[in-house]
Amino acid sequence: MTGSPSGRADRLVAALATAGPDETPLDALLVTNLVNVEYLTGFTGTNGACIVSGERRMFLTDFRYAERASEIEGWDVEIVSGQWLEGLASRLSGRTGFEDDQVTVRTANQIREAADAAEMVEAGGQVERLRRVKDSDEIERIAEAARMTDELYRLLLDDGLAGRTEAEVDGWLTGWMREQGAEPSFPPIVASGPNGASPHAEPGPREIGTGEMVTIDMGVRLDGYCSDCTRTFATGGEAHLDSLSREIYEVTLRANEAGLAAIRAGEAGSAIDEVARAIIREAGYGGNFGHGLGHGVGVEIHEAPRLGPSSQDVLMAGEVVTDEPGIYISGATGVRIEDMVLVGEEGVARNFCSIPKQLTFV
Amino acid sequence: MTGSPSGRADRLVAALATAGPDETPLDALLVTNLVNVEYLTGFTGTNGACIVSGERRMFLTDFRYAERASEIEGWDVEIVSGQWLEGLASRLSGRTGFEDDQVTVRTANQIREAADAAEMVEAGGQVERLRRVKDSDEIERIAEAARMTDELYRLLLDDGLAGRTEAEVDGWLTGWMREQGAEPSFPPIVASGPNGASPHAEPGPREIGTGEMVTIDMGVRLDGYCSDCTRTFATGGEAHLDSLSREIYEVTLRANEAGLAAIRAGEAGSAIDEVARAIIREAGYGGNFGHGLGHGVGVEIHEAPRLGPSSQDVLMAGEVVTDEPGIYISGATGVRIEDMVLVGEEGVARNFCSIPKQLTFV
Repeated sequence: MTGSPSGRADRLVAALATAGPDETPLDALLVTNLVNVEYLTGFTGTNGACIVSGERRMFLTDFRYAERASEIEGWDVEIVSGQWLEGLASRLSGRTGFEDDQVTVRTANQIREAADAAEMVEAGGQVERLRRVKDSDEIERIAEAARMTDELYRLLLDDGLAGRTEAEVDGWLTGWMREQGAEPSFPPIVASGPNGASPHAEPGPREIGTGEMVTIDMGVRLDGYCSDCTRTFATGGEAHLDSLSREIYEVTLRANEAGLAAIRAGEAGSAIDEVARAIIREAGYGGNFGHGLGHGVGVEIHEAPRLGPSSQDVLMAGEVVTDEPGIYISGATGVRIEDMVLVGEEGVARNFCSIPKQLTFV
Repeated sequence: MTGSPSGRADRLVAALATAGPDETPLDALLVTNLVNVEYLTGFTGTNGACIVSGERRMFLTDFRYAERASEIEGWDVEIVSGQWLEGLASRLSGRTGFEDDQVTVRTANQIREAADAAEMVEAGGQVERLRRVKDSDEIERIAEAARMTDELYRLLLDDGLAGRTEAEVDGWLTGWMREQGAEPSFPPIVASGPNGASPHAEPGPREIGTGEMVTIDMGVRLDGYCSDCTRTFATGGEAHLDSLSREIYEVTLRANEAGLAAIRAGEAGSAIDEVARAIIREAGYGGNFGHGLGHGVGVEIHEAPRLGPSSQDVLMAGEVVTDEPGIYISGATGVRIEDMVLVGEEGVARNFCSIPKQLTFV
């Protein structure tokens, strides 16, 4: 349970008026993406769905979650026995949107076949749109998740990195999160030396050496909300570090800071990406930054909006987004520096990541 | 990379002759489920697809995996630049099956729109069907994953359980797996005392007491293949354990052993489930075993076939399946005992789980 966010269903119903393809109204929305179900009802579990209309707030699950479902306030709870999809379909009526970006072709066919009283309409992204702008309760949860991540960074730096394997560090990070009652918001990345050249490196048996860059990308999910923060550290003293690593660190940091300076409500995600990307390109590393600048964070670690070259999103105040440029030199080294911030009308309203960004030797 | 399983694509092509709805032939199959992509090519990563026909073995990925893809033998590798779905669709032709049980409605619409030269046909489950029967290399990998899990059980029992929190034990299990170069095949379950009443309990801050049942359900994924094993232990000496826990342990063990005795090629998954379920029902706990008896294990922790009341599957020699009855007493206690076995013509050909099943006090 992540609380009883009752106003969200009301906001969703208001959105249904223009939710169909071509902005035609929907009578109801079937919500099957579990992340969206949790956002609307607070329910956590592996099986649940919502049917939302002007008149109905129906939450459906199976017998395993009967007890947990009884704690949900403001929703009519129905326990589906027997075949799940048929139970779901039998409760649908009218022009009903479904999450076509999440439902498989097979499942949609089965629902359409069994839903005699409903016309099923492709209408994904409704709840995701609501989720973009966070309320004060959500912002506080995200801040709490970020505080925990920052504390973990400090503990990690106290212990040092050289001489431990990436997998050991990863296991220690994950174990600590769980001891605090949190979960990793994604499997932590601990990428040392040449492994840092892969943006999505998986921690392995490699022992972290001296005079290396180590990229740590991690966050927790706490009370239903995620945090995300990346820092790249150098092992050994100043004298050990190669000049390439030092240079790309400096360029990446400038790109990160330029991104922060560009973030504000009303700005396009593609324009903010370009501000940071231009710095990396002009430094000669345009081909070494092969991912978008950032993404929204909330109940999911990756959610709307996107900051990237092909993003169609325009930022809104109250969104929480990351700013994470990187430079990756295949076979050699890599750097990524990521902050997670609250979008304000005039610029960044709050940076949730407090770990210093000047190159730190550990 | 999990090897170069070249014969699999040939077997898949043979199956395409009768793969369409109504068993009409397909010219080609588009494989987008990453687990199936890995099974066919050995590729591991977050983006990849295969197009398989009599003439073609095409593997597609994006620039991030160009290096990794170059190691794939027996496939034409194409790096898609720009829009992924359009790149995919432009390479399709003829009557092409796609995995309708995995592809979302939105993605299928986008592929259909962009694939001018192809007729897209719903044809999920083709590769899953191939995956059911394991070859000797796969069996050895599964056995290796199971050996690692058994070793971990032994280490765990040496350390004891009482006085540690569930989350601590979970973190320790996961950390150990990663140190060995493996991953958990699913997040380990460590469910103590009343938490054992939930089949899908998540490890939490609860400290494991004395005179309690503790259900541990875990496995590793090693070299691309999974293991799965559940044991329920009792903490403290014989004198501490309540009679209900003792009774349901004894009943569950009998059900597990009856399941093992019923497993053989040609037997229906529903019939094997019923053999074990009848024992639990006759002992008066029919309402306390709310899940199926077992499932296939391979590159995925849950795959075909299923052993359960509504299963339509009939076992084949060479399948690897679990046998995991449980009894769950809400608010009080729970037991589950799970073996993972190789299906043989005459019965269980091999039990991969070597940890004793007699009630063990730790």
